[in-house]
Amino acid sequence: MAAKDMFFFWGSGSPPCWKAMLVLAEKGLWDECPKKMLKFSEKEHKGSDVMALNPRGQLPTFKDGDVTVNESGAICMYLEEKFNDRNKLFPSDVGKRAEVYQRMFEVHNIVSNIMETLVRPRMQNKGAPLDEEKTKENVAKAKEELDRWNKMLVGKEFLCGNEFTMGDVFFIPFLAILKRLGATLSGHPELNRYYDSICGRPSVQATWPPHWKEGPGPDLLNKDL
Amino acid sequence: MAAKDMFFFWGSGSPPCWKAMLVLAEKGLWDECPKKMLKFSEKEHKGSDVMALNPRGQLPTFKDGDVTVNESGAICMYLEEKFNDRNKLFPSDVGKRAEVYQRMFEVHNIVSNIMETLVRPRMQNKGAPLDEEKTKENVAKAKEELDRWNKMLVGKEFLCGNEFTMGDVFFIPFLAILKRLGATLSGHPELNRYYDSICGRPSVQATWPPHWKEGPGPDLLNKDL
Repeated sequence: MAAKDMFFFWGSGSPPCWKAMLVLAEKGLWDECPKKMLKFSEKEHKGSDVMALNPRGQLPTFKDGDVTVNESGAICMYLEEKFNDRNKLFPSDVGKRAEVYQRMFEVHNIVSNIMETLVRPRMQNKGAPLDEEKTKENVAKAKEELDRWNKMLVGKEFLCGNEFTMGDVFFIPFLAILKRLGATLSGHPELNRYYDSICGRPSVQATWPPHWKEGPGPDLLNKDL
Repeated sequence: MAAKDMFFFWGSGSPPCWKAMLVLAEKGLWDECPKKMLKFSEKEHKGSDVMALNPRGQLPTFKDGDVTVNESGAICMYLEEKFNDRNKLFPSDVGKRAEVYQRMFEVHNIVSNIMETLVRPRMQNKGAPLDEEKTKENVAKAKEELDRWNKMLVGKEFLCGNEFTMGDVFFIPFLAILKRLGATLSGHPELNRYYDSICGRPSVQATWPPHWKEGPGPDLLNKDL
């Protein structure tokens, strides 16, 4: 019962939550971890139970005994270090570990080059037309971003080689969201191959956003990516 | 000559560059590390020497022998692990390490709650008036963000206790930029005390942005923070 002193608050489909959940699942802790799913739409993440542990009122919020840690990247590192005897998510060689760290931190480019420029404006404007010239520019930039990740996967099963690492943990939620929003990724075969493969991975299946199972997402990216 | 196979491209005053520089300096590698300062204003970070190592054309760009690693957080972790026998920037206890990771990743809130909402718009509008109501709201949010960091420092020399850690490395460039832009932080005495103390730290002095020494920064925040 390695997880008996843990508690995990989370929201469905949130990339930061999903990252931490993937590590819990990879370490064999997800099923037994005491947890509660909260609804962002009802502002449950601002409830007193979350705020007591995390004054920012953000999800995920996590504790393990006396250790409270809420930033998703920090939860991932904490779990990796505490449960280092289970399914390691880093190689042991320092140079190879650098590549994993590179991928983990590099993911912020997907946020700035795709999520903030294409996904967020379309979520917010609910179908109203966006500036055409600007959109064209943003689509080009988003494709360039996808090109980089596609290239990283050539000849490799996972982002950093043939072992699943923390780099994959940080990347998967964003790739899955792009697919959910209708990106065909037809120009990025390695990304599609990788996506199909990770969708069969037990940790990914166990943590798949529950509300995604109820029906398809809004088809926001199909025409462009 | 631990740094003889390294090369570091950087820009003056860039928080990601400064983070990596602080770790190089804390590890006693900054002076001997082969390096080149580039000018963002002349797009030197898009030059062929950088692009050969870092197709994103971003700074920092870093290599150490066969290892190329460009994301600042990844450079910091690589250096910490490779030079783990010099001035450790993490405690050894897993629970205490979690706190350091928490601070490292939590810094993104300073970006979203201060840099993007107050600093960037004022940099961009060059003195033209901004929406007053929105600014008031953003100032309140920025102060709330500063409150959190101020509170973390009560009774402690550094962010995670009385040892300098990677949490401080990630935080210092942003605090220094706020001070440079005229924030008095008069409502945040712990932040001022901490700032005065870290300004005397050799690693901070050795890596202080060269162009900051030429004169004061634009007084963008004085009235508000």
